[in-house]
Amino acid sequence: VNAPPVIVLVRPQLGENIGKAARAMLNFGLVEMRLVAPRDGWPNPSAGPAAAGADIVLADAQVFETVAEATADCAHVYATTVRKRGVMKPVFAPEAAVAAIREAQGRSAILFGPERAGLETDDVALARAIITVPINPAFGSLNLAQAVILLAYEWSKGEALASPPLTTLEPPAAQDELEGLIVQLETQLEEAHYFWPPDRTQVTKRMIRGLLTKPGWNAGEVRTMRGVLRAISPDNPHAKRD
Amino acid sequence: VNAPPVIVLVRPQLGENIGKAARAMLNFGLVEMRLVAPRDGWPNPSAGPAAAGADIVLADAQVFETVAEATADCAHVYATTVRKRGVMKPVFAPEAAVAAIREAQGRSAILFGPERAGLETDDVALARAIITVPINPAFGSLNLAQAVILLAYEWSKGEALASPPLTTLEPPAAQDELEGLIVQLETQLEEAHYFWPPDRTQVTKRMIRGLLTKPGWNAGEVRTMRGVLRAISPDNPHAKRD
Repeated sequence: VNAPPVIVLVRPQLGENIGKAARAMLNFGLVEMRLVAPRDGWPNPSAGPAAAGADIVLADAQVFETVAEATADCAHVYATTVRKRGVMKPVFAPEAAVAAIREAQGRSAILFGPERAGLETDDVALARAIITVPINPAFGSLNLAQAVILLAYEWSKGEALASPPLTTLEPPAAQDELEGLIVQLETQLEEAHYFWPPDRTQVTKRMIRGLLTKPGWNAGEVRTMRGVLRAISPDNPHAKRD
Repeated sequence: VNAPPVIVLVRPQLGENIGKAARAMLNFGLVEMRLVAPRDGWPNPSAGPAAAGADIVLADAQVFETVAEATADCAHVYATTVRKRGVMKPVFAPEAAVAAIREAQGRSAILFGPERAGLETDDVALARAIITVPINPAFGSLNLAQAVILLAYEWSKGEALASPPLTTLEPPAAQDELEGLIVQLETQLEEAHYFWPPDRTQVTKRMIRGLLTKPGWNAGEVRTMRGVLRAISPDNPHAKRD
């Protein structure tokens, strides 16, 4: 497994957006941020509040003068763009890009351009490949932190540690327990003269069996359901009588 | 190919975040937003500027009093949560959830909770399944628009290659039909004095809601189940009296 990519913000304008990018990164386990010539210098007092607790990313952020310096130790540089450029380079969607990063030998960096204009042609020229998020052709309006979070999210999907705490759903009840429920309901329905006419009984019973089989209720749920059906029956001494 | 999911913002607090969510949606081709009891009313003057041009989503947004009303026409309701809940429902990562939505018969809705606290247990109880974004266990800090954009992004990825659903099973009943069944059973159980002690009533009702939500019964099955429950009740004049 390769090292996570370095996130390089190229000439970011607002400290707030640097903070938001840090927050987006840390949500998905990315911690290495590099800043190229941030417009308002560094550190920036607006970054911290926007990071919403991701201060470690900001504290460790390194600042460089140029993209070349910021990516000097990286074997693979990817440039994110939304618009099509006149540059002839491979274009990856985020999913394919993170797969390539994971497979690659050596560190990878992903460049994100300034808020207003995006990366310039000279920045893109440094990159080996382009990452483009496929977006609504009629409305492309991804901001910096959103672009970062989509890449970070894709990266995290391949990381084992990020797997969700899957709930251990109870397996469906054993067949005999389910059968107990079905027989009970059939009995209650017979007492209520539900099955009529007689020649339809078989079909109706089959349908009710289907209804109760479909849920895949677990043993506890089957017991609860039996209690519920008993409760609402006329045999329940507490039931309403009127 | 199934319809895109409806994005339901439950009790959103800030107009700005509603706007950002609209922007996130439209970037990936989602246009149907529903608002449940937005804190500051609707329309909200802060939403437009934050939408950054996604005004069409805001203009078409519908407002509802309750989650049940907002999802009345939806066969599949998903609740997004970050924290683990005591609710036993299937848990999907975004990728698996959009795959399920795409395969499903009938419309799907995805619920997003208020900024500060997320969805309440009663909101989650209405849902058939839970969507959890796998996140850094040491730093989970996704905001509303970020959660929306990740789901919208995942949805958009499958749009080009979406295949028609394999099975032609009847879709689950719409939420309001299911609600009718749940209310009927609750009423019957109340008449049977099933809910006791009073301080357990809420938990028990939630459990029964879970039982009836799990099957994904279609409209006909829900009607049959209502008939079955009516038949075995003491109110049925044909029922056994002894």
